[in-house]
Amino acid sequence: MITIMSHSNIETLSWHGDRLGSLNMIDQTLLPAEIKIIECQNVETVWEAIKMLRVRGAPAIGIAAAYGVCIGLQTLSADADLSAFRNRLNEVTDYLASSRPTAVNLFWALDRMKAKAESVDTQNVSEIWEVLFAEAKAIHEEDRHICRSIGRFGQELVKDGSTWLTHCNAGGLATADYGTALAVFFAATDSGKKIHVYADETRPLLQGARLTAWELIQRGIDVTLICDSMAALVMRQGKIDGVVVGADRIAANGDAANKIGTYGVAVSAKAHGVPFYVAAPTSTFDLSLSDGSEIPIEERSADEICNGFGKRTAPEGVKVYNPAFDVTPAELIAGIITERGIISPVNRQNVEKMLS
Amino acid sequence: MITIMSHSNIETLSWHGDRLGSLNMIDQTLLPAEIKIIECQNVETVWEAIKMLRVRGAPAIGIAAAYGVCIGLQTLSADADLSAFRNRLNEVTDYLASSRPTAVNLFWALDRMKAKAESVDTQNVSEIWEVLFAEAKAIHEEDRHICRSIGRFGQELVKDGSTWLTHCNAGGLATADYGTALAVFFAATDSGKKIHVYADETRPLLQGARLTAWELIQRGIDVTLICDSMAALVMRQGKIDGVVVGADRIAANGDAANKIGTYGVAVSAKAHGVPFYVAAPTSTFDLSLSDGSEIPIEERSADEICNGFGKRTAPEGVKVYNPAFDVTPAELIAGIITERGIISPVNRQNVEKMLS
Repeated sequence: MITIMSHSNIETLSWHGDRLGSLNMIDQTLLPAEIKIIECQNVETVWEAIKMLRVRGAPAIGIAAAYGVCIGLQTLSADADLSAFRNRLNEVTDYLASSRPTAVNLFWALDRMKAKAESVDTQNVSEIWEVLFAEAKAIHEEDRHICRSIGRFGQELVKDGSTWLTHCNAGGLATADYGTALAVFFAATDSGKKIHVYADETRPLLQGARLTAWELIQRGIDVTLICDSMAALVMRQGKIDGVVVGADRIAANGDAANKIGTYGVAVSAKAHGVPFYVAAPTSTFDLSLSDGSEIPIEERSADEICNGFGKRTAPEGVKVYNPAFDVTPAELIAGIITERGIISPVNRQNVEKMLS
Repeated sequence: MITIMSHSNIETLSWHGDRLGSLNMIDQTLLPAEIKIIECQNVETVWEAIKMLRVRGAPAIGIAAAYGVCIGLQTLSADADLSAFRNRLNEVTDYLASSRPTAVNLFWALDRMKAKAESVDTQNVSEIWEVLFAEAKAIHEEDRHICRSIGRFGQELVKDGSTWLTHCNAGGLATADYGTALAVFFAATDSGKKIHVYADETRPLLQGARLTAWELIQRGIDVTLICDSMAALVMRQGKIDGVVVGADRIAANGDAANKIGTYGVAVSAKAHGVPFYVAAPTSTFDLSLSDGSEIPIEERSADEICNGFGKRTAPEGVKVYNPAFDVTPAELIAGIITERGIISPVNRQNVEKMLS
């Protein structure tokens, strides 16, 4: 039985309680069949949730990590001194950084938390914790505004009556509440445009089928679910006016890492003259990387492909290649929709200009 | 538990017994987890097996249909006259033709059986049945030779140490015993070449994961399983020297219908300069169709996408588009490997020349 709850009733991530409170999150691996809230009361639970994709989507991972730092610091005794605090802070941030290698928002959030701790002019570790907690809440709140802003810029690209394709889930579940790629559709719909969206199911973990289709239905957007392998066909049939996807890390030249399969969609879009957009906050850019070849790509367990749905679907012992992401080169991207505006054409100079 | 049986021990299709015998087939929907043989003792069971993909692959469907005609005619009473025989023959062939719309080998085999019945110069329906049964066995036996011949021509394209990609299953399970696309790999291996094959899992029904990976492992060929959405990435990584797939129907100009997702692979192959081949017997050509736009494309149940792993993986009520095939235009095909030789470049004149 699939329970459809109103999206406004559930939050991807939320803090419950005070200093000794917990980070609550929807277990996205169970959606849409089950809506279960995980209460993270220690940093190990946050790490596991990121690792296992219970929380996923670059911006949401960043928010979870920021709160995760606060939770990790809860283990300090009341009389801990500044040195113990700093040691624990480094321990917690290093640990959280080891959960997933590709989404730069994870490292961005951890670095921001560490920099904030450095900047506080006090020896009182309890005060520093409060400052860090306020910073985590700020990252969370900023993400809401960023997503709304991405939606506002992106919806300008969306014509009334047009049909779009998206891959994976860059929706409310991947962010504080409004999404990046899906924010474009939500904002277009909010502004009165009628659109139709094709959602790639997104193997192996079916974020498109489980999460994107679910979010779009809940928002009343006309959605058709397809297998990833059907995207090229619907483009050839002339059904698709544009593609918009999220990103997990974007290099200085605009090459963008996103969920595996995104690159193939971009290749097809190019072949069919369909504009291909990436929607992502500026925190997704990693200017330390010159181009996409430097983006580390996470490889995940063979079980996700062979045993993913409670049933063995491949011969035992088969070799499997399971990269979680691929990199779409800038030349295939018509524009990158950020909270500051749209980068287009996508090249090193325009990325630099938007981020400066 | 997955039982790996030696491939030589099992036959995709086989006739058991005499005139009142049955058509036995492996239930391919259960592979590789379970090896179950279905005994078809009436034409309804044959129809259901084709419809539900218990037997699949264009050549295997043709063979099953030919035997299915013999089984359908078993219901005639011993004293049936020629007119009753003809009526039943038409009934059975019309019925079997309604099982699946795309694979032309189905119609080709049924037409061949009807033409054979017409050509027999006797009023003795028992004799006509024997002639038809011999024809079904001939179709079956011819397919073995055709596949071996496709393998021989195709393996010339395969360099020692090269890496290939295939989509869906055009292997022994799709034919009498040696495959079409996979025959190329089998023949290359038989001739002492070492190759590596990437197998697309092939959503929604995972014929690549379940059947192709299984067949290749059984033949000792080095195989790596990937999701369909990873094919573009492995091509970009320079890992793929060539692609070879099967076909379900090929139009007079060389446009080829094959399992959904094939077109996307061909688009990617073109973008990466990887040669893309189709391997198919000449019976797969339908010269009555000028080009691929005339090939009817079967649409299948939404359940295959939403409920395929014994578990609901998409929200209830979501709209789904589930075409079982797509058409790859001739200009994306480097060559069509038939039992008579390789058609290359693929165009109307060369198709006509090879088939005449």
